Amino acid sequence: MSVEALRDSFVATRRQFLTICEPLEVEDYGLQAAEFASPPKWHLAHTTWFFETFLLKQFLGDYEPVDPMYEVLFNSYYNGIGAQHPRAQRGLLSRPLLSEVLSYREHVDKAMLLLLATASVHEECETILSRTVLGIEHERQHQELFFTDVKYSLGANPLYPTYRSEVCTANEAPGPLQWTKFEGGLIEIGHNGKGFCFDNEQPRHRVYIEPFEIANRLVTNGDYQDFIDDGGYERPEFWLADGWATAQREHWTAPLHWHEREGESVEFTLGGLKTRSRATPLCHVSGYEADAYARWAGARLPTEAQWEHMAEQTKGSTAPRDINDAHLLHCHPESAKGGGLEQLYGACWQWTQTAYSPYPGFAPSTGAIGEYNGKFMSNQWVLRGGSCVTPSSQARPGYRNFFYPQDRWQFSGIRLAR
Amino acid sequence: MSVEALRDSFVATRRQFLTICEPLEVEDYGLQAAEFASPPKWHLAHTTWFFETFLLKQFLGDYEPVDPMYEVLFNSYYNGIGAQHPRAQRGLLSRPLLSEVLSYREHVDKAMLLLLATASVHEECETILSRTVLGIEHERQHQELFFTDVKYSLGANPLYPTYRSEVCTANEAPGPLQWTKFEGGLIEIGHNGKGFCFDNEQPRHRVYIEPFEIANRLVTNGDYQDFIDDGGYERPEFWLADGWATAQREHWTAPLHWHEREGESVEFTLGGLKTRSRATPLCHVSGYEADAYARWAGARLPTEAQWEHMAEQTKGSTAPRDINDAHLLHCHPESAKGGGLEQLYGACWQWTQTAYSPYPGFAPSTGAIGEYNGKFMSNQWVLRGGSCVTPSSQARPGYRNFFYPQDRWQFSGIRLAR
Amino acid sequence: MSVEALRDSFVATRRQFLTICEPLEVEDYGLQAAEFASPPKWHLAHTTWFFETFLLKQFLGDYEPVDPMYEVLFNSYYNGIGAQHPRAQRGLLSRPLLSEVLSYREHVDKAMLLLLATASVHEECETILSRTVLGIEHERQHQELFFTDVKYSLGANPLYPTYRSEVCTANEAPGPLQWTKFEGGLIEIGHNGKGFCFDNEQPRHRVYIEPFEIANRLVTNGDYQDFIDDGGYERPEFWLADGWATAQREHWTAPLHWHEREGESVEFTLGGLKTRSRATPLCHVSGYEADAYARWAGARLPTEAQWEHMAEQTKGSTAPRDINDAHLLHCHPESAKGGGLEQLYGACWQWTQTAYSPYPGFAPSTGAIGEYNGKFMSNQWVLRGGSCVTPSSQARPGYRNFFYPQDRWQFSGIRLAR
Amino acid sequence: MSVEALRDSFVATRRQFLTICEPLEVEDYGLQAAEFASPPKWHLAHTTWFFETFLLKQFLGDYEPVDPMYEVLFNSYYNGIGAQHPRAQRGLLSRPLLSEVLSYREHVDKAMLLLLATASVHEECETILSRTVLGIEHERQHQELFFTDVKYSLGANPLYPTYRSEVCTANEAPGPLQWTKFEGGLIEIGHNGKGFCFDNEQPRHRVYIEPFEIANRLVTNGDYQDFIDDGGYERPEFWLADGWATAQREHWTAPLHWHEREGESVEFTLGGLKTRSRATPLCHVSGYEADAYARWAGARLPTEAQWEHMAEQTKGSTAPRDINDAHLLHCHPESAKGGGLEQLYGACWQWTQTAYSPYPGFAPSTGAIGEYNGKFMSNQWVLRGGSCVTPSSQARPGYRNFFYPQDRWQFSGIRLAR
Repeated sequence: MSVEALRDSFVATRRQFLTICEPLEVEDYGLQAAEFASPPKWHLAHTTWFFETFLLKQFLGDYEPVDPMYEVLFNSYYNGIGAQHPRAQRGLLSRPLLSEVLSYREHVDKAMLLLLATASVHEECETILSRTVLGIEHERQHQELFFTDVKYSLGANPLYPTYRSEVCTANEAPGPLQWTKFEGGLIEIGHNGKGFCFDNEQPRHRVYIEPFEIANRLVTNGDYQDFIDDGGYERPEFWLADGWATAQREHWTAPLHWHEREGESVEFTLGGLKTRSRATPLCHVSGYEADAYARWAGARLPTEAQWEHMAEQTKGSTAPRDINDAHLLHCHPESAKGGGLEQLYGACWQWTQTAYSPYPGFAPSTGAIGEYNGKFMSNQWVLRGGSCVTPSSQARPGYRNFFYPQDRWQFSGIRLAR
Repeated sequence: MSVEALRDSFVATRRQFLTICEPLEVEDYGLQAAEFASPPKWHLAHTTWFFETFLLKQFLGDYEPVDPMYEVLFNSYYNGIGAQHPRAQRGLLSRPLLSEVLSYREHVDKAMLLLLATASVHEECETILSRTVLGIEHERQHQELFFTDVKYSLGANPLYPTYRSEVCTANEAPGPLQWTKFEGGLIEIGHNGKGFCFDNEQPRHRVYIEPFEIANRLVTNGDYQDFIDDGGYERPEFWLADGWATAQREHWTAPLHWHEREGESVEFTLGGLKTRSRATPLCHVSGYEADAYARWAGARLPTEAQWEHMAEQTKGSTAPRDINDAHLLHCHPESAKGGGLEQLYGACWQWTQTAYSPYPGFAPSTGAIGEYNGKFMSNQWVLRGGSCVTPSSQARPGYRNFFYPQDRWQFSGIRLAR
Repeated sequence: MSVEALRDSFVATRRQFLTICEPLEVEDYGLQAAEFASPPKWHLAHTTWFFETFLLKQFLGDYEPVDPMYEVLFNSYYNGIGAQHPRAQRGLLSRPLLSEVLSYREHVDKAMLLLLATASVHEECETILSRTVLGIEHERQHQELFFTDVKYSLGANPLYPTYRSEVCTANEAPGPLQWTKFEGGLIEIGHNGKGFCFDNEQPRHRVYIEPFEIANRLVTNGDYQDFIDDGGYERPEFWLADGWATAQREHWTAPLHWHEREGESVEFTLGGLKTRSRATPLCHVSGYEADAYARWAGARLPTEAQWEHMAEQTKGSTAPRDINDAHLLHCHPESAKGGGLEQLYGACWQWTQTAYSPYPGFAPSTGAIGEYNGKFMSNQWVLRGGSCVTPSSQARPGYRNFFYPQDRWQFSGIRLAR
Repeated sequence: MSVEALRDSFVATRRQFLTICEPLEVEDYGLQAAEFASPPKWHLAHTTWFFETFLLKQFLGDYEPVDPMYEVLFNSYYNGIGAQHPRAQRGLLSRPLLSEVLSYREHVDKAMLLLLATASVHEECETILSRTVLGIEHERQHQELFFTDVKYSLGANPLYPTYRSEVCTANEAPGPLQWTKFEGGLIEIGHNGKGFCFDNEQPRHRVYIEPFEIANRLVTNGDYQDFIDDGGYERPEFWLADGWATAQREHWTAPLHWHEREGESVEFTLGGLKTRSRATPLCHVSGYEADAYARWAGARLPTEAQWEHMAEQTKGSTAPRDINDAHLLHCHPESAKGGGLEQLYGACWQWTQTAYSPYPGFAPSTGAIGEYNGKFMSNQWVLRGGSCVTPSSQARPGYRNFFYPQDRWQFSGIRLAR
């Protein structure tokens, strides 16, 4: 990418965050309904902190930070940088005010443009450009987290506020589930070297997989309701032991965001409470629920290698859905259309049965930036694909998303394999 | 009080809450840094809910509630009214917006004025008027809680924001502690029937007390520092067993809001971090710390009967400090001036050694309003007097404040007895 | 008491502990089903430690401890002595073996007899004798705790083992509840100077109490069942706020040790599961339940001053029930016989509404032994009287027992007042 | 295996449990110092329950259970069988007594011999024999757990009791660490069909692995001390994020069972506290510590496929160390001798970096017995090899042991790879 293209991408990405924040009220910016769900204002600041910390402070000679305390307040988890404001207390930062955080963004944006303008003659030019790319991709990840976190935090309010009124859950029923067969064998997975990838997608390497079949579409609300009606949440035989213990302790009886209200089955969406349609893709289940559902259905979850192989083999699967990310206006998964392998991207993240671990030969970067992905490679499960709130630019076969198997606030759904 | 006077009092009290909110930013209104520290917006709404619930819905014929959900959202603890939004989640209510809560206040104020205008011909006239008085006093209590809660929640932000810049902690040293002797005997405590009181101050009754001495002024930061320097937090012999266990578990080594910053001893005030002066009255200690300090000092805490007797015997002790509550601008306790029994009101609440329990013959009101005080009569300790953020109208000898012995976020200090 | 009488009392008391242990199996001696319920072996060792620590090590010149670690292992809570093995881990001490603890007892007994034999010529003679009395009374308290703790720990086993087969719960119904009136006034409470008392019973002092009525007998299982049947555990209006929160959190729906088994209502006793009789005195309720029951019954709990006054005024109330403590064979409260104020002692401890606090002028002993009672004077409630497992020698009007209002494992019942 | 050989194996295995229990005192049999460490008596009963539940009740016509409650008390985790006594409360079962549990064993042994004697003519003969084999292997697993659990529970006693006095930790230093190289490629792992295996070792399947090197011996105490001395527990850069959080929360500063006593470095062994030798293999580290150590050492943990491949390629690696399991007398890992790949079995279990998950095509048995392994396939890590307390019969290349990465009470050590 040329420096000019990079600058344009930087500007567009930074502007995009302000765009998706527009429907919020000032009072929403500080909301944090759980330790894992950061406030919008914090996301706005932390993504800015990332550019400041890994680029400006290191490469822009006379850069002046806005406030020395921001280094601590907006550090997410980089021990190599220093202390961090406790994650669970991000919602207690009524100060800096939103207006101050927006000024912080402007201050850093201005400095970033300055740095980029002179990057080509900087002796660390290559690092500056690749770090900027990383910062942009990092910001896109947080734009997606913004949606999941806002949904969780608004959903904790019994008034069930609306983020965006365009959200629609009326869907036509997809056809019956069909299976596509893959032969497997000694294949390759991992990033193929074209375009950007995160460090955890590397290196590309060989994996041997057995023949498998994979479902053409995602599990729907209706499919999952059948599982519930068959006693899914009361029959331990479908569940992993840790999953069952979690479900009992948390009193799970349905996916997150499902409610019954005045006799009607509804689900909370970013457009408020909506009638729950059988046709809509199922969303907001934990890995444990996904695994139990699959066992009940006589199937299983795919491995990440199977998923990636399927995606690479599926024609057109990597095409961005919409270059302007206009799909983000809808913020809710839509039905499969019927016809071949669908919903790889743009509906829900898809739980795999694969524990998140390093690829053979994986080596994180040196320095604090090496903490980006590597240190999380335990206890989490890989999800693949992308959801209705994933930026199109991050929809690719090799992208490895990861959450704890008990996590449900992500737009996470199920694609079966067998 | 005439209905007109009552109406004026109502209007003034309601306006007062808006006045003390003025220094806040919109983002501060939702802050809740602990379960016990409610957000300012919630206080604004709950005091309104009190008038709506106990007056308008019962006595104003065609009263239309703003939103039926408010009944749940802003119910603090009245099981007789119905379900309550969980206390720990008050800070998650970004909606209703501040502007909506202010509209709610206006809506209720208007209806209240209507009710009062016709009260004299209402068959429940007496109840309406006495409930209105109770609602006003209730609102004043929450105005005081507003200060303590805001102080706690802002104090949890490492930026230590300023609520009001007028706060001053520069104080002249008070003189040495002196003791005043009282003969005790068969005395009376409890409300004497003049003016308003809460139900827990009744009935007036006889108590036998031994002769005692009481300190002329409150313990200062300097006095308390001596306790710390003498190993106060490391020597269990001064502590109640539960207090010692709490101090160890919570890693207490100083009062709440005391900090060391860049080699300087500071305390957090509503004016931000300020140099900690030895002369300033000690504030924000738990009952356990107060009790341990007293034992270290060779003294003890007064009983509530002793305190009340002392206050009734002290000339002028009930005079309001300032009819306009201008003292609230300072929001921090000031030094004793030197001269007789001082600081009964207006500096810090004073821990007594008395567990909060019903007076002989105490009977709460019937119905939900009976939950106001009675059900809290276990496990808490009585505090007497009043603090720098207590409305003058609530400064009286018989007022019984109560907190758990581990609570520290109140403006609570120490007056010794022996 | 002469030294000879004291020695006899010492020997008899020490032997009594072995007698009440007889029904246990070796494997029962280490049982600890909750932090508050110490294992029998620990009680046997700790009472021995008390004599070793406060007498032998201080006054018997060349005393040789059995094992230096015992000082830590069997120290209950005396910070003045030093570190303590964590209370919750007393059940993990399979070593020292029971046989070793019994040897420890013999070792200390022998040394104690030596000390007593020479006490009269010791310059600290008075302290030695009074400490020995205290050690004996201390051991008696632990003999009572032995019963309550063993009951709790065996009751946690779904096999509901039997400690003693003589236990009988068949009772004749007592007559209807009757009220006895007392005039109150300026009375005295506290130990009257005759015989032994603990420090917390002193000093005797004046208290003013209003006229009151008190129930002639304790509440029965049947009385309490009526409360349950009337929704007692579902109606917050009867409960203190902290009590209601506790009952909800702990899912209380009946007293401790009540069970339903194969359609029959039973209660666990030290004789195993027994049919639950309406006539039997109610036992194993918390202070919160006692308070809620009283409110439901239109009454209240007595204050400790009222109870003590009543007991002092009741003829014969202090007479020991049985000099040989043969009643301990029954280990379960029995019905009132009908006739005057009954069941002051020998059935159940009786919750008062009084928070446990120091009497005016109370001063604990100096040194570690001062930790005996004083440091527990917060957050607990006073119980008065005595239970079916209280040694007769400790049944007196002034004895102040104390537990947290949530505690239920004690033989604690209800006597109403109004 | 012939029925006769099976019967002999059954008898020998059952007898072996009594042999390893011999050094215990009666009071040790009920010890449970943590939820995960079951009491010896419970292990004795549960292994018996396994034969009763999965063989006698199903296949021996008129089998009479000893006590119907045992079905619940000694059910570990089989939901398909029914309710389970809570795991954390196994230590509270002073009843049934040890003598009763031993009678239970005899009762079941007698019935098992009867069943085996007639098995050949039973229509379910094959199931009976294979279940008996499973029961024997199951009992062997619990015999190993007996050692780890007893070590943990005795180690929680500050007296550090001795289980067996033969334990010796004096070791000669092994030579420097050396690396053996393997070419990898498309290999096979999983049970090869010869002899018994657990269901989780199946099916054998192909895996592609890159070339790798593996250490010839395990990490020693001395190696690990160097890590500690270099700040290993204070430098987050070596740690997985979850591992670091765990280490901080649990205040880890050394492996489990390491202590400093009177200036000497010791470790707790089944022979009591012993001088800690640099030469002894490191034991009792969590997966997180193993992973951090490896990163500090510039290496990594092996994958389970690499480990198994190495073991299959290593000559003689599967030979049982000692047919009589006499090595169990030593109960502590011994030094490597120097010479080729060593310590595959008989010293410490070796953490791999592989999350425990099903092999491709894995299918658990139907019915409750299918809960044996499958439902634990999440959140745990695979360990390979065997320890000094593993029965020789379970030392094989394909055996998959699994624990949570935070677990430390197992005899778990480190073999590096790179």
